[in-house]
Amino acid sequence: MHKGRLEAFSDGVFAIIITIMVLELKVPHGGNDLRALIPMIPVFISYVLSFVYVGIYWNNHHHMMQAAKSVNGRILWSNLYLLFWLSLIPFATAWMGENHFSQWPMALYGFVMVMNAFAYSILSNSLIKHEGKNSNLSKAIGKGTKGMISVACYLTAIVLSMVNPWISFGLYVLVAVIWFIPDSRIEKSMAQD
Amino acid sequence: MHKGRLEAFSDGVFAIIITIMVLELKVPHGGNDLRALIPMIPVFISYVLSFVYVGIYWNNHHHMMQAAKSVNGRILWSNLYLLFWLSLIPFATAWMGENHFSQWPMALYGFVMVMNAFAYSILSNSLIKHEGKNSNLSKAIGKGTKGMISVACYLTAIVLSMVNPWISFGLYVLVAVIWFIPDSRIEKSMAQD
Amino acid sequence: MHKGRLEAFSDGVFAIIITIMVLELKVPHGGNDLRALIPMIPVFISYVLSFVYVGIYWNNHHHMMQAAKSVNGRILWSNLYLLFWLSLIPFATAWMGENHFSQWPMALYGFVMVMNAFAYSILSNSLIKHEGKNSNLSKAIGKGTKGMISVACYLTAIVLSMVNPWISFGLYVLVAVIWFIPDSRIEKSMAQD
Amino acid sequence: MHKGRLEAFSDGVFAIIITIMVLELKVPHGGNDLRALIPMIPVFISYVLSFVYVGIYWNNHHHMMQAAKSVNGRILWSNLYLLFWLSLIPFATAWMGENHFSQWPMALYGFVMVMNAFAYSILSNSLIKHEGKNSNLSKAIGKGTKGMISVACYLTAIVLSMVNPWISFGLYVLVAVIWFIPDSRIEKSMAQD
Repeated sequence: MHKGRLEAFSDGVFAIIITIMVLELKVPHGGNDLRALIPMIPVFISYVLSFVYVGIYWNNHHHMMQAAKSVNGRILWSNLYLLFWLSLIPFATAWMGENHFSQWPMALYGFVMVMNAFAYSILSNSLIKHEGKNSNLSKAIGKGTKGMISVACYLTAIVLSMVNPWISFGLYVLVAVIWFIPDSRIEKSMAQD
Repeated sequence: MHKGRLEAFSDGVFAIIITIMVLELKVPHGGNDLRALIPMIPVFISYVLSFVYVGIYWNNHHHMMQAAKSVNGRILWSNLYLLFWLSLIPFATAWMGENHFSQWPMALYGFVMVMNAFAYSILSNSLIKHEGKNSNLSKAIGKGTKGMISVACYLTAIVLSMVNPWISFGLYVLVAVIWFIPDSRIEKSMAQD
Repeated sequence: MHKGRLEAFSDGVFAIIITIMVLELKVPHGGNDLRALIPMIPVFISYVLSFVYVGIYWNNHHHMMQAAKSVNGRILWSNLYLLFWLSLIPFATAWMGENHFSQWPMALYGFVMVMNAFAYSILSNSLIKHEGKNSNLSKAIGKGTKGMISVACYLTAIVLSMVNPWISFGLYVLVAVIWFIPDSRIEKSMAQD
Repeated sequence: MHKGRLEAFSDGVFAIIITIMVLELKVPHGGNDLRALIPMIPVFISYVLSFVYVGIYWNNHHHMMQAAKSVNGRILWSNLYLLFWLSLIPFATAWMGENHFSQWPMALYGFVMVMNAFAYSILSNSLIKHEGKNSNLSKAIGKGTKGMISVACYLTAIVLSMVNPWISFGLYVLVAVIWFIPDSRIEKSMAQD
């Protein structure tokens, strides 16, 4: 089965998820000076954070699918499962932004991120199973150390949100920074072809 | 006529339908603890159900179109007719979720699903008529037993919603499970080529 | 210049326009029985009408672009001009539906449709100018009789909305029916290649 | 790395950005005659202006990416950075429209436009670095004189919004006109191939 439509459909969902988050930036009705924008700062910060996260997922999805040769029914569903959890990011983001990074919204954000990380690893396992352990894709995906560090950070952030939600926020930023540093493994592996 | 744009346009509509349903998960303004999320549970459950349904339709659409070689004007309109009924799923889902799976919203959900099933069979008939009865596509689509079982379940669910809406809910879950089990016919038929 | 991205971008905009109209079907908060849906009937009817119109435009756009070989800057902007007027259909539809097909909303709907018809003819002229008068595309587009009849119907509908808005409604349905009958010219012209 | 998915994802985001702006044209509930539309005139004007801006960006993005042969991780992120600033245009547009082009919203609009211009130049620099200084792309992008004039206009508009916001408005229209005149450099350079 060709991978073209899986990519096209995923791109559509990614594009919508990354864009509907901006709808939470509601136009302030109470004024037309700069002070009217101040209450929007936490909503804006949470938008930036989630934009980066969705961007990272899109980047990694792009890299991984490019290394894939074809797909099967199992991969289609693994992909939909990932898209499901990605689709909850706008909600978690909005709840976090409107409550100024308070405890439970911070924990929920971490929970959604853990589920996204698991869904992504399910998708990559489905792809490896389909392409074979000695495939380019399998070598390219590697051991998934970054993914494990991320999940550890998310879980720590969920627990520490009870102590101080800003520690959680720092951990979410840290994970984004770790992933922002380009994952050169897949690119190198493909270049060697 | 090439099938590329029909697939691209359909992917766009599918992506939007599956994503705008999440907009019903409105951020609770009354609190920032976990209890604030409790009223959202029925909305969330109905979102999961419809996400799976739209996912199933996208999967089947993907499989069926992949087996097709070209399209004609009749197929374009059959496809638009299917997209029309799919576009009503978010409304039916939201009404069901906000009324905690009560009688009439459950019946409407079933009605929308029956219309989707009919629209899908119209599309597959248009494709078979275009490709020929002995085509790969025709063999792959088969007798449509699953589709008939689904419609029987929907109609039963509509009637029984007057007795107990949860029976209807159970039937909708059952149909989703039936379809979730991958329809291996088309994949096999294509592999034999 | 390749036509691929013009088609992809247009498909995205078409998909969003046709889908955001369904957001006007707001979940009734006043009840969970069938009577709660009665006030939505005019909104639903106007949704069906506009869905068919956008579907017709997508179909014709698809046919016309398929006959085109390449595009230039002028065509890109003609296309954006068409997308601009198409993007106003959801607003005109919503105003019409919420005011139960009263005079001025009916007239505005007609005005938006006239502008769409003009924009479409500008786009087809740009394409003919680019491809040449003896091209397949030029023959396929033909004299545009249907388009002229449509504009005459729209203008009549705008004027007669002051007498009885339902005459206008009838004329809008008539135009949709005229276009729904497949425009076989382009398909035939391409088949002769 | 192929450029296909970068284009598809960008097209999706462009399509959503250009279309969600129309959601600000909210159906007037206070009446069904033409006077009910009068308060919407500033919202409509700001929609037209931003539609043209996003159209210009899509056009330029299209031209530039068509001249590119492949992409790398750096280009993917430069592109996401541009999409981020583009995604803030609907907010800036809505605030401007709802406050009838008053001082601070005009200044914010200019600020968002400056950031978009910078993001676009970062993307074009990433592409030039990847393709080489003697590539077609590099020659096609040229010195970026138009971009520099635009930024100068935006900055002037931000400062002069304190004197008279309509001067700023005039400058934004001027920039749109400058870009609307087709940038023939890239098209010519490609035609010479």
